[in-house]
Amino acid sequence: MEAGTLDFESTVFDKEYVTFAGRREAIVRGGRHLFERLPAAFEGVRQLGVIGWGSQGPAQAQNLRDSLGDAVKVVVGLRSGSSSLDAARAAGFTEEDGTLGEMYEVIAASDMVLLLISDAAQAEHYRKIFDNLRPGTTLGLSHGFLLGHLLDIGERFPEEVDVIAVCPKGMGPSVRALYEQGATVNGAGINASFAVEQDVTGRALERALGWSVALGAPFTFQTTLGSEYLSDLCGERAILLAGVHGIVESLYRRYRDHGLDAKQAFRHSVESVTGPISKTISKSGLIGVYEKLDDQEKEIFATAYSAAYPVGLELTAEIYDEVSAGNEIRSVILAGWRSDRFPMGKIDQADMWRVGETVRADRAVDSDAPLDPFTAGVFCGVMMAQVDILLEQGHPYSEIANESVIEAVDSLNPYMHARGVAYMVDNCSTTARLGARKWAPNFDYRLTQQSYPAVDDKAVDPAPFEAFEGHLIHEVLRVCSEMRPSVDIFVE
Amino acid sequence: MEAGTLDFESTVFDKEYVTFAGRREAIVRGGRHLFERLPAAFEGVRQLGVIGWGSQGPAQAQNLRDSLGDAVKVVVGLRSGSSSLDAARAAGFTEEDGTLGEMYEVIAASDMVLLLISDAAQAEHYRKIFDNLRPGTTLGLSHGFLLGHLLDIGERFPEEVDVIAVCPKGMGPSVRALYEQGATVNGAGINASFAVEQDVTGRALERALGWSVALGAPFTFQTTLGSEYLSDLCGERAILLAGVHGIVESLYRRYRDHGLDAKQAFRHSVESVTGPISKTISKSGLIGVYEKLDDQEKEIFATAYSAAYPVGLELTAEIYDEVSAGNEIRSVILAGWRSDRFPMGKIDQADMWRVGETVRADRAVDSDAPLDPFTAGVFCGVMMAQVDILLEQGHPYSEIANESVIEAVDSLNPYMHARGVAYMVDNCSTTARLGARKWAPNFDYRLTQQSYPAVDDKAVDPAPFEAFEGHLIHEVLRVCSEMRPSVDIFVE
Repeated sequence: MEAGTLDFESTVFDKEYVTFAGRREAIVRGGRHLFERLPAAFEGVRQLGVIGWGSQGPAQAQNLRDSLGDAVKVVVGLRSGSSSLDAARAAGFTEEDGTLGEMYEVIAASDMVLLLISDAAQAEHYRKIFDNLRPGTTLGLSHGFLLGHLLDIGERFPEEVDVIAVCPKGMGPSVRALYEQGATVNGAGINASFAVEQDVTGRALERALGWSVALGAPFTFQTTLGSEYLSDLCGERAILLAGVHGIVESLYRRYRDHGLDAKQAFRHSVESVTGPISKTISKSGLIGVYEKLDDQEKEIFATAYSAAYPVGLELTAEIYDEVSAGNEIRSVILAGWRSDRFPMGKIDQADMWRVGETVRADRAVDSDAPLDPFTAGVFCGVMMAQVDILLEQGHPYSEIANESVIEAVDSLNPYMHARGVAYMVDNCSTTARLGARKWAPNFDYRLTQQSYPAVDDKAVDPAPFEAFEGHLIHEVLRVCSEMRPSVDIFVE
Repeated sequence: MEAGTLDFESTVFDKEYVTFAGRREAIVRGGRHLFERLPAAFEGVRQLGVIGWGSQGPAQAQNLRDSLGDAVKVVVGLRSGSSSLDAARAAGFTEEDGTLGEMYEVIAASDMVLLLISDAAQAEHYRKIFDNLRPGTTLGLSHGFLLGHLLDIGERFPEEVDVIAVCPKGMGPSVRALYEQGATVNGAGINASFAVEQDVTGRALERALGWSVALGAPFTFQTTLGSEYLSDLCGERAILLAGVHGIVESLYRRYRDHGLDAKQAFRHSVESVTGPISKTISKSGLIGVYEKLDDQEKEIFATAYSAAYPVGLELTAEIYDEVSAGNEIRSVILAGWRSDRFPMGKIDQADMWRVGETVRADRAVDSDAPLDPFTAGVFCGVMMAQVDILLEQGHPYSEIANESVIEAVDSLNPYMHARGVAYMVDNCSTTARLGARKWAPNFDYRLTQQSYPAVDDKAVDPAPFEAFEGHLIHEVLRVCSEMRPSVDIFVE
């Protein structure tokens, strides 16, 4: 992965360069005024097949239909007998007008096919899917998992098709909701990354950019399919889901041990992260959290940060290795085979999450959650550790900021804030849910075994925090915040 | 794996059949009176090279030298410049008399080579090791990890050598200490399993049995190299190390939450497992624990057992899959590459283990730890889940009993009893230490998320316990207890 070498030339859309901490990355700015260029971007595509009706499927099919109008026919493809057929019909995709059909027939009849079925289903059915792609078709993915699986089993994409990706940085319902808001609110939408893995038609780049613009992405960043799945699987197994879960469980226990009652412990751990810490990072970055603290709190933050950072670095490095080596992808496949016998259990039945229900119900009458400086230090330390691992591995700065920071504070933590940890984790993909379950307890144990005893024994090495204030991520996040969609993601 | 088909014919040692719950398994009974048969077993072996001086190396080299006398020359091989050279010299292996040398020279000069270096070193150096084996050499392993690694990378053992294994069911220091006791105490020693993976000389079986008898094994069971590493890696990642660690941490927290003070919580969790529960299982099996309880305690046990068993089953199935697929072996290799940057951290720095030091110091003045029926139910439920997964996978009964029950209560838990969890885990191999760190938190979380809430909500499905009293493992353990060495493993 050499992110520094990525660039592209589009004849349909205007490329801009964004400079992040001295590194230039090419992007495309979206907007409804560009929808008139979509026919040019989709030149040669008469039919666009959207396969699957899970999280991304309904959102993308509807956004694309609305954006493309008469230029391209958007057809949803589902397994025959799929339980989602009625939902697709309710959204206006019907057999009668030829916009709903059996998935393999839709694949064979489409010039561009967006494969939005689950990772497990992609792994199970990829051979038959590939066999149904006509030469010259553009295969679109919203996630690089399939590439990882193919690499793992020594297979490849068919040579005679384009392979591109557009990966929205939010769950499907948000992709739809912010698109709808975008009709009236300037700049509403979900940013996305794109990648061109194979280009046999010579149109792969324009189709990828057109797809992203049509979804309503305010900004579209470039990456590679490999970089996408590595950062995505690593991110959800580290700070985005597992990391934050392990952090708040370990902190809740620590605050209880230190004498806080259950509700206060919940406020100083979970509510502090999902409330003031996430909101502050969203507006003014990691450095913004630190700057909000008084001198005494800054010391507490610095100690907690330096104690947590090494644990975050060690575990994120382990997770990155496990993803790179294919272990995590194989684990997901194996879990799929066991899933009938062992359906995934609930993760929010312990006392602390029951307390959380009460805390949330009390919110209207109680004051806001505190910006706890210890909690903030731990959270920022583990988050920065992931940033540093992805930097070492050469990911694009825009991807690092999205997969380590922005997705956490703008997209995921709001779910935990609304209804607890399970609502955040179990609204994600099966791949993410499995990874979160496996790694969250490891963050908890390492923090409890190493970070907190170091704090209590006054044995924390201050080196990690010494690199905090001058870290290049602050400048990257400042630039990203200028590209932040104007509307917060709404969580029901 | 079809364990039912294993059998062997020896012309040197007397085979006996043991009947476990209707299944016959062939074994060899050891003893010092058989040492006179060792020259016949080792026929054609003039020099026996013992490579490595870690846990098994010193024990096996000394036991073999003492047992074989003048019949076979035992030579220790170490890396040049190895930090263990002095220790080997102190044990009487010296360059002067040709019983200590550079490892590749020793490998090339020996007729039988016991490869007792670490798993990581085997994975790193196997190619050069294989290149130095003369055709017709007998390669001996004490663990199947190398087979797993070779399968994972698509390699094989060299075709022109024997490949055998003898796997003592205890750590190296115990293998030496009980051998020494065996000189005066009849039946002292560590049981072992053996396997013949390749036999080009026609002498592989006799050499394997001779090796085990020479180590002082009171009983030697048959397995395959594949079965050995699957059950070994799975066992240490499940009940033997990770499982018991996660169990006692989750129970300690539960008992604290229920109002016990720190010492009492430690006694009802850790001390109960390492004390009365392990001692009872050792003498009278899992059923013996249940039979010691009064009626009210039996109900508590049954509920805890039924609540914990599904979690144990699900996680042990996951771990077994991860080991079978090669993921755990790859993880160990990857961790080796990271180990300079990220040395393994301590696992016993949290408050509960500091309390444990006090509890142990108080033992002389306080009464014995209680046989807590809830703790016993959880421990036995997770243990039985592992037994059932290994039964499903067709492992020999003797191996299942050893890798799920006997090693826990006779070999490992005594270490935790003596000095806490780190003393148990970190006296094991790097492979085991890594696996214990990764999976222990998962046992803790699943029990806390699923088992204990089910108990508190009175929503436990009683089905698992209904299969407990009639389970075939009780008969298997009864037969095994007749083969139990007469001396307990001594923990310093």
